[in-house]
Amino acid sequence: MGPGTKTITLDGRFQMHRAGYIESPTLAYETWGELSEKRDNAILIFSGLSPSAHASSSAEDPSDGWWEDMIGPGLPLDSNRFYIICVNSLGSCFGSTGPASINPSTGELYRLDFPVLTLEDVAEGAFRVVEALGIEQLHTVIGNSMGGMSGLAYCVNHPGAVRNFISISSATRAEPFAIAVRSLQREMIRSDPKWDLGNYDVDDPPILGQRLARKLGMMTYRSPEEWVERFGRQRTTATEENVADPFKIAFSVEMYLENHANKFIGAFDANCYLYLSRASDLFDLAEHGGSLKSGFKRLKLERSLVIGVVTDILFPLHQQQQLAEGLREVCPDTVLVELDCIRGHDSFLVDMDAFRPVICEFFEGDCG
Amino acid sequence: MGPGTKTITLDGRFQMHRAGYIESPTLAYETWGELSEKRDNAILIFSGLSPSAHASSSAEDPSDGWWEDMIGPGLPLDSNRFYIICVNSLGSCFGSTGPASINPSTGELYRLDFPVLTLEDVAEGAFRVVEALGIEQLHTVIGNSMGGMSGLAYCVNHPGAVRNFISISSATRAEPFAIAVRSLQREMIRSDPKWDLGNYDVDDPPILGQRLARKLGMMTYRSPEEWVERFGRQRTTATEENVADPFKIAFSVEMYLENHANKFIGAFDANCYLYLSRASDLFDLAEHGGSLKSGFKRLKLERSLVIGVVTDILFPLHQQQQLAEGLREVCPDTVLVELDCIRGHDSFLVDMDAFRPVICEFFEGDCG
Repeated sequence: MGPGTKTITLDGRFQMHRAGYIESPTLAYETWGELSEKRDNAILIFSGLSPSAHASSSAEDPSDGWWEDMIGPGLPLDSNRFYIICVNSLGSCFGSTGPASINPSTGELYRLDFPVLTLEDVAEGAFRVVEALGIEQLHTVIGNSMGGMSGLAYCVNHPGAVRNFISISSATRAEPFAIAVRSLQREMIRSDPKWDLGNYDVDDPPILGQRLARKLGMMTYRSPEEWVERFGRQRTTATEENVADPFKIAFSVEMYLENHANKFIGAFDANCYLYLSRASDLFDLAEHGGSLKSGFKRLKLERSLVIGVVTDILFPLHQQQQLAEGLREVCPDTVLVELDCIRGHDSFLVDMDAFRPVICEFFEGDCG
Repeated sequence: MGPGTKTITLDGRFQMHRAGYIESPTLAYETWGELSEKRDNAILIFSGLSPSAHASSSAEDPSDGWWEDMIGPGLPLDSNRFYIICVNSLGSCFGSTGPASINPSTGELYRLDFPVLTLEDVAEGAFRVVEALGIEQLHTVIGNSMGGMSGLAYCVNHPGAVRNFISISSATRAEPFAIAVRSLQREMIRSDPKWDLGNYDVDDPPILGQRLARKLGMMTYRSPEEWVERFGRQRTTATEENVADPFKIAFSVEMYLENHANKFIGAFDANCYLYLSRASDLFDLAEHGGSLKSGFKRLKLERSLVIGVVTDILFPLHQQQQLAEGLREVCPDTVLVELDCIRGHDSFLVDMDAFRPVICEFFEGDCG
């Protein structure tokens, strides 16, 4: 949790969407800009699975955030005009309560005693922050990847509490390929003997499994097309220590994955990852009323924007089209933008030049 | 090795393509049909990474082979007309010498003392079998997946020894996404403590890592489109024993992967898998002369056929197009067939109705 992060601790029991409850959870969040007198300029950001609430730098925390080039004065999410809020997902490990937090009823870490987490819970956690900030209606909810589904959960469970919705590289629910990817990532972590059914030593976590899971993640966050351009069949000159193993890294793409895995080590709690990963599988807009159609019907939006990327293999383009079609039924002012970015699912993090104009236009901003 | 499998043991040192040699390797193979008097009707099949030489049933071994519906009387590879040979790849573990074989100079298993394996070695092993069978020129070399690259290696290293070439869901070389997939599969196996730098107990191999690798394999052998149709978001009713773990299998697609992983257990030696997997990364037609163009120029073919599948994510369609274009430069009678199968890379094993007519036509057969 950085110096710019604030927290709200809720009073009493927080009822979980599936079953069970947690006692007085804490939600961590950051804000940028000022809430207007009419309290009508608030934008809520839902992140993907792994980021914290530190979406952008601020006076309190000048370090770059994960969406640094999107949020700030004169940027698409313009802090001169809007009051922007990003909440660390319930179940995560950057200040919000999750499996890595102390269970007040036992004094021990929750670990696998944490109840089943859903994106409805993630949405509700954020709703309670918005409520505590005195905001009755959000100008816009915007969500990336898993955050797009959390955003849908927010809008469907609180119709009228959101005027506009932006979904980026997300969907109404996961398809089996994405479920398979995440299931295998979870199995990699669970197969690491150090995971020990979630009871790992916090100072000696199941890094081996987490490293494998991160590499598989990177393979689905980027695109084969990007890697052909970027690496081709280039060899790496870097050497590894273990010369007894003839299968050590030889190609640049292998070293790229290795570097990403190394960067991620220790950055995310393994149990929190497992809970959020499963929550991403479980979300299904159709569970809100029994069908996708009935789920969409519960929405009450003025405008919506769906952005997808042609090279995304985790939330492929046809899912963007399905989402936009469903939204258009209940919110005629829905725009679908298909971006021709080469960097796959992660494009919204790394291909800012493509995303900024689209989001700027949605907010009728002047982003030069 | 089944009852239909024959073996040839080569005399003396077998020089490996990169470096080193192995002493008197054995090659396992099966055949169907009869060699004609002119010895001009032989077809050589190169398999993908994991199959044995048992491509089809025979009088000696009536059990189904891995390409049962393709080979036999009246089938596209018509054993009434052709003499069909399938060699278990050098480096594999179904009768041919590989890392799981005894190193005659030590009396111990080769394990990681096996020299670096390349598909040029796989091709050369098969060439020596063909030679031993008294065949100077093959009617056709046909290869699937990794076998397509082995087939290219055969044709490029023995120009004139092959009249026709069929490549199925293969390429001139692997792209970085495929390398990344295989690298991660290898890392899963190598990360299993039981692998022990290749020195695992043969009766207690690194099954955990092999299971994970197989699941990732299945994710790239099939297609997301197939799984949407086949599984959607269907839940499984099967239960797992470990109820303490809340991340157990919930979706049908997870159970599907589990079943495939269980079937594969013990079916393939881990070290052999690592060697063949790396060999698939290493092959590059461009290494034959310094460029793809020069590699193609070494070929001397009468006709060639390239078959690819639109949903293949391991050897994508643009690689089929590149291969066909390169072949056409040196062999004008080259046909590219793009099949609209939904089952991805594995279609050549499971979507016989799509492949049979194409291959039948190539051989001007009458496949009803």
